Amino acid sequence: MNKKELFENIKRKKSFLCVGLDTDIRKIPPHLLQEEDPIFVFNKAIIDATAPYCVAYKPNLAFYESMGVAGMIAFEKTVAYIRTTYPDQFIIADAKRGDIGNTSALYARSFFEHAKVDAVTVSPYMGEDSVKPFLAYNGWVILLALTSNTGSKDFQLTEDADGLCLFEKVLLRSQEWSSDEQMMYVVGATQGSMFLKIRKYAPHHFLLVPGVGAQGGSLEEVCKYGMNEQCGLLVNASRAIIFADKTASFAETASYEAIKIQQEMKLYLQF
Amino acid sequence: MNKKELFENIKRKKSFLCVGLDTDIRKIPPHLLQEEDPIFVFNKAIIDATAPYCVAYKPNLAFYESMGVAGMIAFEKTVAYIRTTYPDQFIIADAKRGDIGNTSALYARSFFEHAKVDAVTVSPYMGEDSVKPFLAYNGWVILLALTSNTGSKDFQLTEDADGLCLFEKVLLRSQEWSSDEQMMYVVGATQGSMFLKIRKYAPHHFLLVPGVGAQGGSLEEVCKYGMNEQCGLLVNASRAIIFADKTASFAETASYEAIKIQQEMKLYLQF
Repeated sequence: MNKKELFENIKRKKSFLCVGLDTDIRKIPPHLLQEEDPIFVFNKAIIDATAPYCVAYKPNLAFYESMGVAGMIAFEKTVAYIRTTYPDQFIIADAKRGDIGNTSALYARSFFEHAKVDAVTVSPYMGEDSVKPFLAYNGWVILLALTSNTGSKDFQLTEDADGLCLFEKVLLRSQEWSSDEQMMYVVGATQGSMFLKIRKYAPHHFLLVPGVGAQGGSLEEVCKYGMNEQCGLLVNASRAIIFADKTASFAETASYEAIKIQQEMKLYLQF
Repeated sequence: MNKKELFENIKRKKSFLCVGLDTDIRKIPPHLLQEEDPIFVFNKAIIDATAPYCVAYKPNLAFYESMGVAGMIAFEKTVAYIRTTYPDQFIIADAKRGDIGNTSALYARSFFEHAKVDAVTVSPYMGEDSVKPFLAYNGWVILLALTSNTGSKDFQLTEDADGLCLFEKVLLRSQEWSSDEQMMYVVGATQGSMFLKIRKYAPHHFLLVPGVGAQGGSLEEVCKYGMNEQCGLLVNASRAIIFADKTASFAETASYEAIKIQQEMKLYLQF
């Protein structure tokens, strides 16, 4: 999916919500545990319940890998289900990969050829040749810039000799590798005023914003400082939607929570 | 395995070789492709051929993930085979993971509880709370410091306002999180003189050194600048050993290549 198509979907649905499929076997409704593939059954119900109100899904690989082979089967089935049933959804493999060139190339093949997602989150620590193999595919790299966790201050917020923070250098340097047509950035929503700095260096890029909801960020602040002429935001909510209810009506509750966020997003969208 | 046991193994075997199991289905001997699980059959033969000459194995997750579920089964079987057949081998999952706390915790569970490896490679970009969940297990974190690829100059080698490179800050800051009894660092061998800087900040830690062999580093230089009072080095070779020969005698050739490296290592080991 290209940038224009993504923006069209956002305008049509009045939503820039990304639903994070951080599906933890210990947190899904207990009655699903009797299913042969409880993770997939849960995801399918969540997807069917939320698809009208979001434009993207973001399965977090850690949750699937933690269950070994069974988890990876559930991941692949989930991606395939979204791809075939809701082809207008943007699918992000939240994997935070990054390795030397030949290894990154294999990760890229896994996600873009095998699983067929639209985007992969990538860590910038190893630099250009660790990121470029992902760009060789007709897909998106979502590069970690400023994350929402407390550890972001350890390295991302330290200044270099020129007064630039590491996350700013990531924004600047990575734009030599690709454009806003194939690269986005992860920007943690708990630091709303930081969006001014981000937009200074990346005015036109889409930003993937985790941390609204359970992690404490404010949607209003994100929109005020982060939105651009093509929206430029994908705001993720995971736990606040998918684990809002552990009873048999979990899917209806997820739908209700997604609608609540979508309705707020609609207020901020002026397109 | 603790640090003392690892050092004892190194002294006994006169080797600090780590064999990288970067097993690429497109590079293994063609006659193995008729096997039901060619990756595992290949790995098992390589392991049996090299185990006397090395102290560690490092399966690179990218190679297994790129094959989807079948690859992950091969990974798990490989780790289980090493664990049961050669219990004195140190097993490193080369995964370069790192995410917010609850997600890193799941990766940690995958590798330490499910796959039962001794160590996981972790990216430091997201800071303390992305690394600590791995330390909650009785296993090792091998943190990326200075990598062997050209992209290492993009961020790792840039200096902050105090004249410290990012990789030096990683070495300093991370020692507040754990000691040399549970943390090692990845240090790329193509930059031999850099070991002086590394040892200035991490004199007692083990260093995992990729990049000797196919990636061009010199073992002599690594030992000259990097070895400490307990060896303090695990030097990895992957392609130079496992893909040295694509005929039916690939395992014998791998054994021969491992012996060659072990014999050179023996010269530098003064224990």
